[in-house]
Amino acid sequence: MSEHLTLVKVGGKVVEEPASLHDFLVHFLQIEGLKVLIHGGGRSATTMASRLGLEARMVDGRRITDQAMLEVVTMVYGGLVNKNMVAALQSLGTNAIGLTGADLNYMLAVKRPVKAIDYGFVGDVTHVRTRELTLLIDQGVVPVLAPLTHDGNGQLLNTNADTIAAEAAAALSTAYQTELVFCFEKPGVLRDAEDDRSLISALNYDQFKELQAAGAIHAGMVPKLDNSFDAIKRGVSRVRITNIPGLQSGGTTLLPG
Amino acid sequence: MSEHLTLVKVGGKVVEEPASLHDFLVHFLQIEGLKVLIHGGGRSATTMASRLGLEARMVDGRRITDQAMLEVVTMVYGGLVNKNMVAALQSLGTNAIGLTGADLNYMLAVKRPVKAIDYGFVGDVTHVRTRELTLLIDQGVVPVLAPLTHDGNGQLLNTNADTIAAEAAAALSTAYQTELVFCFEKPGVLRDAEDDRSLISALNYDQFKELQAAGAIHAGMVPKLDNSFDAIKRGVSRVRITNIPGLQSGGTTLLPG
Repeated sequence: MSEHLTLVKVGGKVVEEPASLHDFLVHFLQIEGLKVLIHGGGRSATTMASRLGLEARMVDGRRITDQAMLEVVTMVYGGLVNKNMVAALQSLGTNAIGLTGADLNYMLAVKRPVKAIDYGFVGDVTHVRTRELTLLIDQGVVPVLAPLTHDGNGQLLNTNADTIAAEAAAALSTAYQTELVFCFEKPGVLRDAEDDRSLISALNYDQFKELQAAGAIHAGMVPKLDNSFDAIKRGVSRVRITNIPGLQSGGTTLLPG
Repeated sequence: MSEHLTLVKVGGKVVEEPASLHDFLVHFLQIEGLKVLIHGGGRSATTMASRLGLEARMVDGRRITDQAMLEVVTMVYGGLVNKNMVAALQSLGTNAIGLTGADLNYMLAVKRPVKAIDYGFVGDVTHVRTRELTLLIDQGVVPVLAPLTHDGNGQLLNTNADTIAAEAAAALSTAYQTELVFCFEKPGVLRDAEDDRSLISALNYDQFKELQAAGAIHAGMVPKLDNSFDAIKRGVSRVRITNIPGLQSGGTTLLPG
């Protein structure tokens, strides 16, 4: 029986306000066993881009990443957000290390081919190398993964944090019994986005597609769930979608099949 | 006999222009054995600060680091410069990992006490932890160290890259036979700063102090040499100061005693 590893992806407002970030980290550290943290940082990137006179352009929730915007996300995701999160974890007594896909060469991607839309320097993940990553995890170190990959030819690429989380969870399933938890502002997948009491506690793929067809699940939740069901097929034991209070056991659990 | 480890600190123009950065990395990788890379990035930080409407303030070559400037150096040193250097090393077939002092909790510092000058969020190194660092080095991974430390209480701090290099070299001397190389634009320590042919090939502490008193060595070279002679006392086998062509064996060698 392999050891249990929980990967938590945190994004949205949770990560970008100091008070909720601290609250999140305290709850995160209460999860038992080995852990990996994956963060976003889109709001901070948009703010920094704006201060530099750059306009953030989004298509279907994905950021168009030209050269100037790549510099911004490299600074904000790889530097500002990532390193402050690592320093905060150290202050709570947990040894952590911040990584982009270039570090340890752990996540390789290709620049997304230009079709109807040119996303610019956005990376589609091709390969995850876990060798040195597991070495650190086995020492009790918590890797903190920024939403950046590289192409192996010196080019950093912007990759969605939900994708990073699902890819890392799937790859690490060969070494651990992995659980993937998406932590955001809502208690989980809701039948009615305006009503927190409409939480769906368990969801399989067919039910997800029915709810999507009915319009109850839409926007950013759709790729998150698509990624998640894909991760289950690739060996992730359990996927949950929840908020800070639900980190250890609450939220929506996705069911295989 | 412990293994040989070469730590190279690169700074100034060398690191901030793509052409010379590539030239540097190719020469760096020709050094045999285990390696650590330490980088600066002050010019890029000053440029980014200026784009954000912040004014860089320096006292005796040291940057005054208020909260806004700390954000800039965290982004530029920890993100932009560090991650592009790691991606470039990967493209050259070398596994690398970018680190601040917060990562792996490897370098702790205290915020410099306010005396005549308030340097702001500048860190004086108190402790270097090498345990997980040696684990990575022994795997052939090249750590790429950004000039940032932390205080263990969640605060990142700006620390001079020469200091990071000397402290890391001294601490790693317990595990390896360490050589510390400072790589910059000049071939080494010069008798006449305007004449590259006036290279001093070997220098001991007393000669350094004589040249300093005579005004031949001044400005940024003084703390670099003070740090270096201190590193020799603390177990570093050899310290050299050189440029890209001299990386493997040239430049000024500092002599103990």
